[in-house]
Amino acid sequence: MPSSPLAMPSHLEELIAALRCLPGVGPKSAQRMAYHLLQRDRAGALHLAQALELAAANVRHCSKCNNFSEYEICALCASAKRDAGLLCVVEMPADLLMMEQTQCYHGMYFVLMGRLSPLDGVGAKELHLDRLVKRAREQPHEEKLAEVILATNFTVEGDATAHYLATLLQAQGIKVSRIARGLPVGGELEQVDSGTLAQAILERREIAA
Amino acid sequence: MPSSPLAMPSHLEELIAALRCLPGVGPKSAQRMAYHLLQRDRAGALHLAQALELAAANVRHCSKCNNFSEYEICALCASAKRDAGLLCVVEMPADLLMMEQTQCYHGMYFVLMGRLSPLDGVGAKELHLDRLVKRAREQPHEEKLAEVILATNFTVEGDATAHYLATLLQAQGIKVSRIARGLPVGGELEQVDSGTLAQAILERREIAA
Repeated sequence: MPSSPLAMPSHLEELIAALRCLPGVGPKSAQRMAYHLLQRDRAGALHLAQALELAAANVRHCSKCNNFSEYEICALCASAKRDAGLLCVVEMPADLLMMEQTQCYHGMYFVLMGRLSPLDGVGAKELHLDRLVKRAREQPHEEKLAEVILATNFTVEGDATAHYLATLLQAQGIKVSRIARGLPVGGELEQVDSGTLAQAILERREIAA
Repeated sequence: MPSSPLAMPSHLEELIAALRCLPGVGPKSAQRMAYHLLQRDRAGALHLAQALELAAANVRHCSKCNNFSEYEICALCASAKRDAGLLCVVEMPADLLMMEQTQCYHGMYFVLMGRLSPLDGVGAKELHLDRLVKRAREQPHEEKLAEVILATNFTVEGDATAHYLATLLQAQGIKVSRIARGLPVGGELEQVDSGTLAQAILERREIAA
């Protein structure tokens, strides 16, 4: 969108360009956001500026679970209430939040911050998988690691990552599981895609008599 | 979306909350944006913070046309190349940009920064319509105001605003026009909505013999 040099002040133009760093924000939305902030919410704009600076300066990665944290060890890893015998591997912090919302998992986590994706140049090294293996091996003796649960996405890349991790961890003598695939709660056979239904058939569970 | 207090550092939580000030950004997108910035684009986050502060501090409204400007009088109003005898009234700065992109209008502008919308509490006072009338009346004599072109949107509110402004300006003896309604360029009768077609019939133009 070529803009007339007369029609827009440069600081406004720069703000629109800077907003483009947000994912999913194109030129039109960036323009709409900038106009909204300047016209209706300058306090919000200043607050956002401060929040961005604080977060960029203070948020780093937990040295144990790799999740975002303000401290060397995050609150979840430091908590005495969690079951240190279980380790769940997820792709992203958002996945960890989803796991926490189920309120049915009380173990520890490891956040990959991505997935194996050779086409994008993301290999085992880029994902720091050595840190995950180290993390699994260096489990203190009094808290034996009973199981690693692989909760990467059921996409091609997530599945490949889970497969790779399973091989890696089983080689260390660690029990590895994968979260279940099947029909969603409330799912109807008529509505579900055939791939999911095929998996649900293959991974069927015997009903205890 | 309730978040586990253990799962998220507070600066991250504050950043997600602050991103909600952007129009069209809900809790999920705000989270995705914050993760993206912290994980992949911290430089972009700091750059955005700076752009927000600079724009909030420096961008104000042009005292002549009410558009965003860094100066008392914006570059467009100060330009000697524009036809001071024409004044085009638009709702938003984005509309002014669209007008400029046509490259077929070379007059001045007045940006309402909104539209009459009684349900949202936006009346003539909130839109500073007195400033528009003052602007139209105080035209210097050597640059007689030949015409005010109303280019508000063809929505109910935009039409009402245009109607109100026409009455107001005609009372001052000023010639007022409205941009044309009709089929878009490349438009086909079969595809267009009946309201637009009805207007195109009503506002038909005689073809010079």
